[in-house]
Amino acid sequence: MTAQPDQTGARPGQIIISVDAMGGDEGPSVVVAGIAESAKKNPEIGFILHGPEEQLRKLVAKRRVLDGRVAFRDCPDVVTMEDKPSQVVRNGKNTSMWSALESVRQGEAHGAVSCGNTGALMALSMMRLRKLPGVNRPAIAILWPSLNPQGFNVMLDVGADVRADAKDLLQYALMGASYARNGLGLARPRIGLLNVGTEEHKGRAELKEAHGMIAAFADQANFEFVGFVEGSDIPGTSVDVIVTDGFTGNVAIKTGEGTANMFSDLLREAFQYSPLSRLASILAITSLRRLKNRVDPRHVNGGVFLGLNGTVVKSHGSADATGVSAAVRLAFTLAKSGFAEKLAARVASTAELDQDDAQAASQAER
Amino acid sequence: MTAQPDQTGARPGQIIISVDAMGGDEGPSVVVAGIAESAKKNPEIGFILHGPEEQLRKLVAKRRVLDGRVAFRDCPDVVTMEDKPSQVVRNGKNTSMWSALESVRQGEAHGAVSCGNTGALMALSMMRLRKLPGVNRPAIAILWPSLNPQGFNVMLDVGADVRADAKDLLQYALMGASYARNGLGLARPRIGLLNVGTEEHKGRAELKEAHGMIAAFADQANFEFVGFVEGSDIPGTSVDVIVTDGFTGNVAIKTGEGTANMFSDLLREAFQYSPLSRLASILAITSLRRLKNRVDPRHVNGGVFLGLNGTVVKSHGSADATGVSAAVRLAFTLAKSGFAEKLAARVASTAELDQDDAQAASQAER
Repeated sequence: MTAQPDQTGARPGQIIISVDAMGGDEGPSVVVAGIAESAKKNPEIGFILHGPEEQLRKLVAKRRVLDGRVAFRDCPDVVTMEDKPSQVVRNGKNTSMWSALESVRQGEAHGAVSCGNTGALMALSMMRLRKLPGVNRPAIAILWPSLNPQGFNVMLDVGADVRADAKDLLQYALMGASYARNGLGLARPRIGLLNVGTEEHKGRAELKEAHGMIAAFADQANFEFVGFVEGSDIPGTSVDVIVTDGFTGNVAIKTGEGTANMFSDLLREAFQYSPLSRLASILAITSLRRLKNRVDPRHVNGGVFLGLNGTVVKSHGSADATGVSAAVRLAFTLAKSGFAEKLAARVASTAELDQDDAQAASQAER
Repeated sequence: MTAQPDQTGARPGQIIISVDAMGGDEGPSVVVAGIAESAKKNPEIGFILHGPEEQLRKLVAKRRVLDGRVAFRDCPDVVTMEDKPSQVVRNGKNTSMWSALESVRQGEAHGAVSCGNTGALMALSMMRLRKLPGVNRPAIAILWPSLNPQGFNVMLDVGADVRADAKDLLQYALMGASYARNGLGLARPRIGLLNVGTEEHKGRAELKEAHGMIAAFADQANFEFVGFVEGSDIPGTSVDVIVTDGFTGNVAIKTGEGTANMFSDLLREAFQYSPLSRLASILAITSLRRLKNRVDPRHVNGGVFLGLNGTVVKSHGSADATGVSAAVRLAFTLAKSGFAEKLAARVASTAELDQDDAQAASQAER
């Protein structure tokens, strides 16, 4: 992407990320701390910050690294976690979330990041950015810690829509493959369709139908289709991208989070049990910290909305500065790779399921 | 239960468990080792063992604790993990699995245990034992390690059927409550309905409908309904019984298993990283072993089939002797508590949703 929105005074080559400063559990100071972290690590990045300007200017003024790299858009209103998406769509015009998306829509930013209400953010994104041609249901994709060399697997949809038919699942496969290529640098990602068994006769009718459709697209869309996978494969090494409907995907990631939390709690208990085990925990502290970093959800914070005209990253509502910074980095990486344009071309290919192979081949690199 | 099937030479008061010796990944020697472990711990238990009699007699003869406590039913055939349920139902008459269920059907055993093919076991169980009056879809319930005082939560359905409508979910709630009372000793279990959010407007239509139906039954069926819960609550403390359809439940438990395995692998790696961390792992070995035992799936091995005329426990296909023994203990506990009869009375109450309160009150203890 080469657009350089001049309203922000962006330097040539700079990537501008539009950031909703409000709506997270921790308030705008954590968001500003997060973008400061990103700014320190990454000289190519600039920001448009949305929220009550006076308050935000004060927070930004404290961070020298942000000097001259932040533009402001004053918005009086905030979308809360309790607001219903339908209300926000009707009455949310003066919210920081609306404004953050508007910067992407107007082309003055290359991507948006928000810690706010997921349902409202998806509803607003669909209304303001519009779905890509050929996309029926957009999806939310997340990165999940795995034993694969890249350290993460992609899973989608994890909650944009509780339903998905066979064609939706095919589009998730294409979007997920594109995301794995551009976000994780995997040339030919392995795609799996989540089911209750790996045998082809198992599962719901729409899954069997999707199985055939995804298999038929594997060559021209340059991914490997491994067929049905199970829940145990989500953090495993047999697959890079896990495709499922938003209901199942949401339950799966929350179950994984809950299990990891239980494990951490019990591990902490185990180390506090006796003087010997307390000593052990001191000796092993660096190794344990390394383990913690490896599975720390803050480092892979950010669900990406796929299937829209523009890149939107949903950061966890309770993200701290490290989490916000990870979400910003993700938006930056995707913007820099021209992901949005590649994805648009990719899904357009499903609009005509019987397109010719020459055209497909030209898209195989996306 | 007081039936004392004399074919097995059972002593008065003895509980007889019918065990399918074949079909597990580890073969009959592990199954015999497992029942020997159970026999050692529990003088009240006797067995009927199904499979090739000559082979089984040799294995049993090596275990003195099994002397006089095992009857045999010779069966030449075995259900493999690859067999389709529909084939087994048609042609499985000479299999050890069929025979193991037959002992329950004939009343010569108080419950059955099998390590074999889950789909085939469920299909055979439905055909031979029949569904309880009022039950549309039977369910498989498992115990899941949790941070609750009882150490486990109940989840159902985890794979008997990929579909479930609102009335099925209500029956799962009633069956799960009854199981938690009889299997975990919880007088008034807390029931939650798995969804993608805890707000009442979220999720699929059948979930909203089930929410109302389960809430309406909470008082008369003597459970507390906590409403919608999320995947993160499955191993948590906010709920004792998690109700969901078999597709979602199956994905959830496998995701939890996969996450726990990843965590174990990474923990092992962390402890091997440096001389210091290796020393630490030695110092902490008892504490870590305690943690491992706490979450060891072998100790809670056994999915219980609910909604049938008789108790069937599905042990994990790859269970070792400890796993088989845990499944046998579960079948024993449920048989001893008269669970099958209590459950039958409980679900019968849903056949007439508008039954009178007096009748309901008399069933509140089940």
